[in-house]
Amino acid sequence: MVKIGLIGFGYWGPNVVRNFQSAEGAQVVSICDINKDALNRAQKNHPTKKIISNPDELIASPEIDALAIVTPVFTHFELAKKALKNGKHIFVEKPFTSTVTEAEELIELADKKNLKIMVDHTFLFTGAVRKIKELIEDNVLGNLYYFDSTRVNLGLFQHDINVIWDLAPHDLSIMDYVIKEKPAAIVASGTAHFSSELEDIAFITVYFNSNIIAHFNINWLSPVKVRMTLIGGEKKMLLWNDLEKDEKIKVYDRGVDVENVEGVYNLLVSYRSGDIWTPKVDQTEALKLEAEYFIDCILNNTTPINDGQAGLRVVKILEASNLSIKNDGRIINL
Amino acid sequence: MVKIGLIGFGYWGPNVVRNFQSAEGAQVVSICDINKDALNRAQKNHPTKKIISNPDELIASPEIDALAIVTPVFTHFELAKKALKNGKHIFVEKPFTSTVTEAEELIELADKKNLKIMVDHTFLFTGAVRKIKELIEDNVLGNLYYFDSTRVNLGLFQHDINVIWDLAPHDLSIMDYVIKEKPAAIVASGTAHFSSELEDIAFITVYFNSNIIAHFNINWLSPVKVRMTLIGGEKKMLLWNDLEKDEKIKVYDRGVDVENVEGVYNLLVSYRSGDIWTPKVDQTEALKLEAEYFIDCILNNTTPINDGQAGLRVVKILEASNLSIKNDGRIINL
Amino acid sequence: MVKIGLIGFGYWGPNVVRNFQSAEGAQVVSICDINKDALNRAQKNHPTKKIISNPDELIASPEIDALAIVTPVFTHFELAKKALKNGKHIFVEKPFTSTVTEAEELIELADKKNLKIMVDHTFLFTGAVRKIKELIEDNVLGNLYYFDSTRVNLGLFQHDINVIWDLAPHDLSIMDYVIKEKPAAIVASGTAHFSSELEDIAFITVYFNSNIIAHFNINWLSPVKVRMTLIGGEKKMLLWNDLEKDEKIKVYDRGVDVENVEGVYNLLVSYRSGDIWTPKVDQTEALKLEAEYFIDCILNNTTPINDGQAGLRVVKILEASNLSIKNDGRIINL
Amino acid sequence: MVKIGLIGFGYWGPNVVRNFQSAEGAQVVSICDINKDALNRAQKNHPTKKIISNPDELIASPEIDALAIVTPVFTHFELAKKALKNGKHIFVEKPFTSTVTEAEELIELADKKNLKIMVDHTFLFTGAVRKIKELIEDNVLGNLYYFDSTRVNLGLFQHDINVIWDLAPHDLSIMDYVIKEKPAAIVASGTAHFSSELEDIAFITVYFNSNIIAHFNINWLSPVKVRMTLIGGEKKMLLWNDLEKDEKIKVYDRGVDVENVEGVYNLLVSYRSGDIWTPKVDQTEALKLEAEYFIDCILNNTTPINDGQAGLRVVKILEASNLSIKNDGRIINL
Repeated sequence: MVKIGLIGFGYWGPNVVRNFQSAEGAQVVSICDINKDALNRAQKNHPTKKIISNPDELIASPEIDALAIVTPVFTHFELAKKALKNGKHIFVEKPFTSTVTEAEELIELADKKNLKIMVDHTFLFTGAVRKIKELIEDNVLGNLYYFDSTRVNLGLFQHDINVIWDLAPHDLSIMDYVIKEKPAAIVASGTAHFSSELEDIAFITVYFNSNIIAHFNINWLSPVKVRMTLIGGEKKMLLWNDLEKDEKIKVYDRGVDVENVEGVYNLLVSYRSGDIWTPKVDQTEALKLEAEYFIDCILNNTTPINDGQAGLRVVKILEASNLSIKNDGRIINL
Repeated sequence: MVKIGLIGFGYWGPNVVRNFQSAEGAQVVSICDINKDALNRAQKNHPTKKIISNPDELIASPEIDALAIVTPVFTHFELAKKALKNGKHIFVEKPFTSTVTEAEELIELADKKNLKIMVDHTFLFTGAVRKIKELIEDNVLGNLYYFDSTRVNLGLFQHDINVIWDLAPHDLSIMDYVIKEKPAAIVASGTAHFSSELEDIAFITVYFNSNIIAHFNINWLSPVKVRMTLIGGEKKMLLWNDLEKDEKIKVYDRGVDVENVEGVYNLLVSYRSGDIWTPKVDQTEALKLEAEYFIDCILNNTTPINDGQAGLRVVKILEASNLSIKNDGRIINL
Repeated sequence: MVKIGLIGFGYWGPNVVRNFQSAEGAQVVSICDINKDALNRAQKNHPTKKIISNPDELIASPEIDALAIVTPVFTHFELAKKALKNGKHIFVEKPFTSTVTEAEELIELADKKNLKIMVDHTFLFTGAVRKIKELIEDNVLGNLYYFDSTRVNLGLFQHDINVIWDLAPHDLSIMDYVIKEKPAAIVASGTAHFSSELEDIAFITVYFNSNIIAHFNINWLSPVKVRMTLIGGEKKMLLWNDLEKDEKIKVYDRGVDVENVEGVYNLLVSYRSGDIWTPKVDQTEALKLEAEYFIDCILNNTTPINDGQAGLRVVKILEASNLSIKNDGRIINL
Repeated sequence: MVKIGLIGFGYWGPNVVRNFQSAEGAQVVSICDINKDALNRAQKNHPTKKIISNPDELIASPEIDALAIVTPVFTHFELAKKALKNGKHIFVEKPFTSTVTEAEELIELADKKNLKIMVDHTFLFTGAVRKIKELIEDNVLGNLYYFDSTRVNLGLFQHDINVIWDLAPHDLSIMDYVIKEKPAAIVASGTAHFSSELEDIAFITVYFNSNIIAHFNINWLSPVKVRMTLIGGEKKMLLWNDLEKDEKIKVYDRGVDVENVEGVYNLLVSYRSGDIWTPKVDQTEALKLEAEYFIDCILNNTTPINDGQAGLRVVKILEASNLSIKNDGRIINL
């Protein structure tokens, strides 16, 4: 039985509690928040659990084996470091940390202590992303050309992080999961309309050595909600519209066949256009699968797909994106 | 009566002929193409017009007052220059020229000779763009935040120009028309999958001094056709989906109201979400209006909205985009 | 304080409990179900309420002022009759009763005892239907031509009622609410594919004396879910797509203007096609408003819009529809 | 070489001319219309053809082998009869005739004279309907449950026929083609809002002995255009949305499996929900294929799928629909 303590009973924390609670082999024993209202809600909804207002008390508690850190990103490092030092496995909200250095330090510490880090890249556990992963692994799409994602809506402005750190971790973690190759460099642009520091619209291009190109359009100021990803491959192309209820993924038997490349003016291109296929996508709650997987990784001492390294890879791109924007779109090698 | 000669009876030329033919005050007197099949088609469909295989002959002809140049972009400059030297007004396919220098030379020449240049930025004459222009001019949207355009499909690969020069002129000419402010700088990224020189996917960000940001996503490798532009303003936001038949433009009474900006942590943001309005959009063929307007500008000696300067402004961004991509996304000041 | 007992803690009952519980002036004091699993769930989720397995005990209880009957339709009459005899107001799931006679008897009984009947026509309390009602009342649509509703999906086959009694009460109650005129006659068709008695697909046409025509397409065997209602009026027409999240109702400034009717061959018809308007629709949970309204009607002794008479009017059409189908589509005067 | 004369150069006639003109083995030699404007247009666009104002002259002409009758339905019978008597094959606009008796007389006459009748059920030659036919023939859908079609828009009111005779022939001819079984009976309802005689909204239910049910919703007063057909089968179900450009047909691996039917209360129903498949649909112009097929049937003396009998079957349902409406929805056995 893995005993779990949770810090941060705000918007997402209650979902984490509920899913760990129902995961086999796990038990949530205590909940911590520094906010009084959150504590009252925790008390009311979880009368049998220990409710704690001091994070240090929770982290030091010998009763817990693992700590779920569901707090703002700027607090992750300190909380995670203490937890690891106290011998606790950690489940950390995304993005993993505020800087690359922090992420590296936590990974090193966890390695030394033989503890697990799981970064809550929830999307990896959705039916849609698992299906996309499967289509790419099984080479249904063939060699990839591009990954183009749009995540825009009239968003809740965050006060401590810009739109990149708020929205892009979803798509960057998905890209990191489905494209095995390491990104080579990034270029980002964006602007802040309401404060001098926090961009509310941004665009990130990620270059790969193999010529895959990835692009992320993120925007807190869109009147409509869009959640769309296009992935183009040599053999097939797919459109993932996450707002569709029943038909999230469409696989298009469409593409170009380049017959002969002897220079620019001799490109012979022909076009394929065949059937479209909409695979059924599993509807199981992603966080439920992820919670079970965390317990499983601890009990069987295996490394999660969304470990500290995965978290670090996402933070690297986030950090580079900020740097690129502040330097007028300068390319940043990764 | 303005007598018109046309060079280039390929895909678009026949439409230009048809619309000039039916424009009041205009008469298409001769059609020229160096391709035999094109000449035969011209002969068959326009038995009463003079069909010419030598462009120089057409350009020198004293019978014509104006020349419509509907040929590949790399030929525009030489043809246009000769036409202007021969005292002909010119109607030139977009993009105007292959370089900024060429555009500037043509503008200067036309000015000297008091001749009209019209660049075929057809989209400016669509009901949708005229409605958007009106909404912005009438301050319905308020101060603009951004202009975000996506134009992707399984495109016809061009052999002499990349995806930027092929697709972006549409959206750049629209941006140029509806946003009065001069762009300050651009950052572009993109990649070529099939040849070492011609990008098939690209992303352009255009910065303005006022903090408006514009973005263009153009792609020849998309399995689905998307033609969407989001324009966000302080008072209203709009979505233009050009693939919709009846409901091309939706105006959203949505946005954020920022109450007080005293630093990052004191941003008080509230959200508005009201009705949506889908204005009726005029369905008249854009090229018909444009052809009539060209004649009108010649007869009344007025300067077209899509004059050489407009063409030059688009070419400047195209040229800068290529430069930025070749320099790994370096910012190019305009 | 209105004290409420509920019978039927199946799929919908828990929502009724939750909403009455949070309605001001109301208190749910006891929950009854004859099913053990349901009782256990009730016990677990509502540990402070009295959990009862015998309906008669609940109905006789002097502790309750009103009874919510959320059970299969064939049980409504007996339960409701006992409740009224015991001096309880009743909130009854739709359809109100299995027969017109039953509905009439209950209405009479309630009138005698001065008790309220509310039939759970939940849709009347949705933002969409309230907006439609407002548009019709304010004469925005003008005189109505038709009401055409489609409610199809891969439905849960019911074992005691056909698709008409399962799905049509929603749309019939909405029609009854927004069209003030009394229906004159109905014609229904349909078929049963899996049992000899229970239609799984049906079509109902309702005639009005004023020439309004209403139509209902209901189907348990559709691969896709459709929830669409078209309402055509002299001045405007509307489309209600209940599956849209943000744009449920579109009001079209479209229609025909008939200039002169001097016989079939002299009909001069012109067409109007103007803007479209998507009014913002209130998102408050319908059942919450309905529960508050029930309490309000009891405390202020007012007659609900969804009283026994409204329930009766719907049951009349349901009964007539079954009769029409069994008689090969014979018209049934109402 | 089959020499063709055409009567009726209105909206559809020019398309018929163009397609017969380009069909191998066919030649359009003369065009007839009683309207002067139509004749002028014919003259202008087809300067080499004989342009005739008197139908009788065309019909009697020894120069033509076949007559295309593209006139209002009330004129079909007289023109067709004369043509057959003069030994001409006929291609007749849908609906075939105004009455069943007329259709029968023409069929008999053609049989006697060994002449071909083809009724212009154009939709049978679209890629979408050919694909649907194939899916049903190949038993991909399994035994059919229903055919449910909606064809509504802000329609051009016809002055001589009601909405049923205007719009339903499309869908009835499709149903007739893809469902081999003979319809058993029909029930129709509808109403006329602007004249006492011509319904502008109507609903038709067609019963089959095998328990297939078909339904047609046709409406000249809809603010939106809808062209949708649902076809439910035991094994698969399909949705045909003819307004979609690229994804007209979706085949759903969805349905119900009824395990055991021992009476109403013992129905065990389970639900299947699998992938969706969007087959590529051929985009060849339907009328082109149909014109070539007409020539082919004449030259090879084969019977068209859309012969007089097919036309008659559609007219039977149209006639029965009118009768049913006039008799308040009485069932009409076919």
